[in-house]
Amino acid sequence: MKRYKIKIEYDGTPFVGWQFQKNGLSIQKVLQDAIFSFSQERVVVIGAGRTDSGVHALKQIAHFDLKKKIKKKNFLRGVNQYIGNRPVTILSIQKTKKNFHARFDAKKRTYQYIIINRQSPLALQKNKAWHIRKKLNIQAMKKGAKLLRGTHDFSTFRAASCGAKSPIKTLKKASIKKNLDKVILKFISKSFLQQQVRSMVGCIKYLGDETWNLADFKSALKSKSRSKCAPPAPACGLYLKNVSY
Amino acid sequence: MKRYKIKIEYDGTPFVGWQFQKNGLSIQKVLQDAIFSFSQERVVVIGAGRTDSGVHALKQIAHFDLKKKIKKKNFLRGVNQYIGNRPVTILSIQKTKKNFHARFDAKKRTYQYIIINRQSPLALQKNKAWHIRKKLNIQAMKKGAKLLRGTHDFSTFRAASCGAKSPIKTLKKASIKKNLDKVILKFISKSFLQQQVRSMVGCIKYLGDETWNLADFKSALKSKSRSKCAPPAPACGLYLKNVSY
Repeated sequence: MKRYKIKIEYDGTPFVGWQFQKNGLSIQKVLQDAIFSFSQERVVVIGAGRTDSGVHALKQIAHFDLKKKIKKKNFLRGVNQYIGNRPVTILSIQKTKKNFHARFDAKKRTYQYIIINRQSPLALQKNKAWHIRKKLNIQAMKKGAKLLRGTHDFSTFRAASCGAKSPIKTLKKASIKKNLDKVILKFISKSFLQQQVRSMVGCIKYLGDETWNLADFKSALKSKSRSKCAPPAPACGLYLKNVSY
Repeated sequence: MKRYKIKIEYDGTPFVGWQFQKNGLSIQKVLQDAIFSFSQERVVVIGAGRTDSGVHALKQIAHFDLKKKIKKKNFLRGVNQYIGNRPVTILSIQKTKKNFHARFDAKKRTYQYIIINRQSPLALQKNKAWHIRKKLNIQAMKKGAKLLRGTHDFSTFRAASCGAKSPIKTLKKASIKKNLDKVILKFISKSFLQQQVRSMVGCIKYLGDETWNLADFKSALKSKSRSKCAPPAPACGLYLKNVSY
C-alpha cells in the first residue's frame, strides 16, 4: 500500500462541493470513481480544503492509498480520461510518506476571491466571479481587510455547521487589488473556518458598497456573533489557489 | 434616426458565430432580438469582426440605427436583461456620427490567442483555450511570429470562403508570451483575412511542436497557397480583444 499526493484543478459550478454527498455529484466522488475505473481499487480521496458547491480550485491537494503499482504518466492519462468531460483534472501525482495527511498537515492555504465591479452582467466570467453593480470603495475595503489580519476569534465569520475545535485563527494575509473592473481579494492562513472566506468577503463588500462604515465592520468582528455577519459572498467567486506543506 | 456604437463581450462557445445564420443562434441575432424587445424596432447590428463559432470577444464593437430616443443607462440595463442567460453582454453604448461604420472604419484590431501547454486536460479553462500536451518550443514559435510581422500576401492563411479583395495585409504586431503553462499570442492589424489568426496560430504551433522547422514555415508563407497551411488552431482559444477607430 502506497500513499499518493495529487494536485487537482476544478470548476466547482456543476458540483455539490468537494465532499461526497448523497444528493449530487461531488468532486471527491468524480475522483474516486475515476481512480476505481483505472485501478479497480476503491479509495478514499482526502482533500486539503472541503470547498463548497460552486467554489473552484486552481490547486487543491489530496491524498489516497493504492495497492496497485502505477506509473505516474499512465495514472494521469488514465484517470483524467476516466474523469471524462467533467471539469476536474489531476495536474500531478507523487508518492508521499505513509502518514502524510492532505488536510491536517497543510501549513498554509491560499484562497482568492474575484469580484467584477461593473454595470453589465458577466459573459466570459459567468459563474467564475461575483458580479457587483454598485461602484465599490476599494480604499474602505482595504481598511477592513487590514483589520482581519493577525490572530482573532473569527466566530462572526463561521458557518453554523462548522466543526472546528476553535474559532481562533491567524490570518497571515488579507489583501485587495484592483485591475480595471476586476477586484482580487487574497487570503492566507494555516486553516480557515467553514465559510470563513466567503463571510469575510461579504463583510468587506459591505464596506465597499458603504452599507457599513469601518466602525460597523469592527463591531461585527468583535461581536464574535454569526448574526452580525453580512451575507456570505457567493461561492462562484472563490478559488482555492494553493496549499503548502 | 440616430446611430449608436456599442462595446460587447461574449463567450462564443454556444453560438454559430457573430454573423446571423439560419441554422443556429448567432451573437448578432441575440443582440438584434434583445434590442427589438427593448425598443420594438428591428435593427441590424454590424460588428467590427465577424468572429467564427466558438471565438470569444473581450471587446467587440458594433453599430446600429434606432429611431426611439433612449437613455444609455436604461438601454444597457434593459437590453442586457432581455439577453437573459446567454453569455453576451453590452459593456457600453454611445451615440456616434451618422456615417460611422464599425467594420469599415476600424483602424486597428487586436486578437489574442490562448494555449494551455500541459499534460492534464483543461478544467477551469475548458472551451476558453487550446489544450496542447506536447511541450512547445516557444523560441521557435517566436521566430515564426517575427516572420509574419509587416506587409505580406497572407493567402496561405486565408479561408477558401474569404471575401476580402486583397490577400495583402500589414501585421503590426505578432508576439508570444509564456506564463507558467499559459502561452499568449497577440496579433494586431488594421484588418484580417477570414481565419487568418487561427491559420497563423496553427502554423506557429507546428514550429512549437517541431512538425516544422523555420524553413518549412517560411516556405508555407511564401507559397501563398492554402494547401501549405497547417490545420487552423481551434476557435475556442481565440479572443477579439480590442478594436480602435
